[in-house]
Amino acid sequence: MPGCEAVLSCDWFLEGTHFLRKKHPPAAVGWKCLARALSDIAAMGAEPRYFLLNLALPEELTGRWLDDFLTGLIRGARRFHCSLAGGDTTCSEKVLIALTVAGEVTKGRAILRSGARPGDIIYVSGRLGEAQLGLEALLSKHPRRRWRSSALRKHLYPEPRIALGRELAQAGLATAMMDLSDGLSTDIARLCASSRAGARLDSRRLPLPRSSSANEACRSRDLALALHGGDDYELLFTVPPRHAKRLPRTLGGVAVTPIGEVTQNRSILLLDANGEPHPLSVGGWDSFRSASRTNR
Amino acid sequence: MPGCEAVLSCDWFLEGTHFLRKKHPPAAVGWKCLARALSDIAAMGAEPRYFLLNLALPEELTGRWLDDFLTGLIRGARRFHCSLAGGDTTCSEKVLIALTVAGEVTKGRAILRSGARPGDIIYVSGRLGEAQLGLEALLSKHPRRRWRSSALRKHLYPEPRIALGRELAQAGLATAMMDLSDGLSTDIARLCASSRAGARLDSRRLPLPRSSSANEACRSRDLALALHGGDDYELLFTVPPRHAKRLPRTLGGVAVTPIGEVTQNRSILLLDANGEPHPLSVGGWDSFRSASRTNR
Repeated sequence: MPGCEAVLSCDWFLEGTHFLRKKHPPAAVGWKCLARALSDIAAMGAEPRYFLLNLALPEELTGRWLDDFLTGLIRGARRFHCSLAGGDTTCSEKVLIALTVAGEVTKGRAILRSGARPGDIIYVSGRLGEAQLGLEALLSKHPRRRWRSSALRKHLYPEPRIALGRELAQAGLATAMMDLSDGLSTDIARLCASSRAGARLDSRRLPLPRSSSANEACRSRDLALALHGGDDYELLFTVPPRHAKRLPRTLGGVAVTPIGEVTQNRSILLLDANGEPHPLSVGGWDSFRSASRTNR
Repeated sequence: MPGCEAVLSCDWFLEGTHFLRKKHPPAAVGWKCLARALSDIAAMGAEPRYFLLNLALPEELTGRWLDDFLTGLIRGARRFHCSLAGGDTTCSEKVLIALTVAGEVTKGRAILRSGARPGDIIYVSGRLGEAQLGLEALLSKHPRRRWRSSALRKHLYPEPRIALGRELAQAGLATAMMDLSDGLSTDIARLCASSRAGARLDSRRLPLPRSSSANEACRSRDLALALHGGDDYELLFTVPPRHAKRLPRTLGGVAVTPIGEVTQNRSILLLDANGEPHPLSVGGWDSFRSASRTNR
């Protein structure tokens, strides 16, 4: 469209690395491979338009499994107004998916990771750590029912924050943005490195999983989930203080929470329950750091 | 650019399916994964602009193998004026590559598979079957030296026919076009199905591999290579008779050869050495038909 810039994003979704054939329903594999690629588009403030699907799978999955996979994929495509425009298929021992999404954003409005400035307020959307809880429920033999449904849904059928990204981009509110795919502790470090800045996060302000209780052991576990759990596909973004004052608590249909501040000093600090700063250790997902983990 | 349309293409390139780690040099893997994706762009008459690389590989290959792979890839990118714009990397047991190329073509000039009309002359570029000979040389313990160099080069470092595609598109000469990745017998059937037409090919006019001799057994083998051998990345296109008369023998730096004619009758026929028509059986590459073959 005139006045728009094209944006492209591509993502792996591999059996054994990103999902388990025996645990993840094929419809969820179809939905999620699209949703996580759309999340990258949302994180630029862009609108998805169409996508290309590279799919390789064993011949014995070309029946029922493939039908269910496509049902989940097409449901996601309809939900997020994004059409399947092409792709490539082949045969392989494991299910391999590489998905490319093309989107559009108003010229000059795309939000990058690199624009955060000292003093900007750091926000996240939604709650952090729920997808990890959902994964644990999926892998557990005795899932606790009370948080199973919402956390499991978040793990299997994440919602890319397209409306939030669009509103932030159109209103010119955010200086930097990315999606939280590998855990806050990993991703805030990436955003800060791109912006040549640091961050001070406040553990007391993090939006913890809904399962949270006042019990201290639970709270500490939930904090670890919120800091290091991956696959949330929430947005992490920075807003200059003058805009932060008038930012509503809900934007694009999702809660947004201020969790800290961008600093000139390039370290990443976390304030504990008493407001004391500690260096934040990276505990999220990184393919080559966590090569032995095969449950994500 | 104004007045242009964007075109996108994506392609798998998988260890064990499309290449063998022990046989294919990493620089050739890098070159070829780009070249075959560019070939799809060339087949639309478009110019490649940039590409996204999805790469998954075992941790032990992140040193020397990866360096050589990137050397081949970047050499291809420079040669074909196409920049690496992004991608996704992760860890896997085998080398997995999914490459997406974005290109541009003048509005309304993109050539599809579906435009061939009865009476159009069918052309191919270059020679057919040489890449298959090169693969056989690569896998053989005693490669015959005399055709090893050119055929092996064609298998390892194919040249997408970008200039030819562009010239055909800009001059509005071709009614339908596609690249020959899976063998002429497979691909002509696809072009004809898209165009709701048939074809009559003349075996006497096919540009056989350079190794060809007058020996009848050799000639029959070379004919089979030209009909069914894959990986040539030459262009297959159709030209209305009025344009065919003035088509030069070389276009975009490569020879172009008329090999037959589009027919109303939807069968695919091959004229033998005596000019007798026979139904052409499909013998090329199809992932799910040839699941047991792992040498391509």
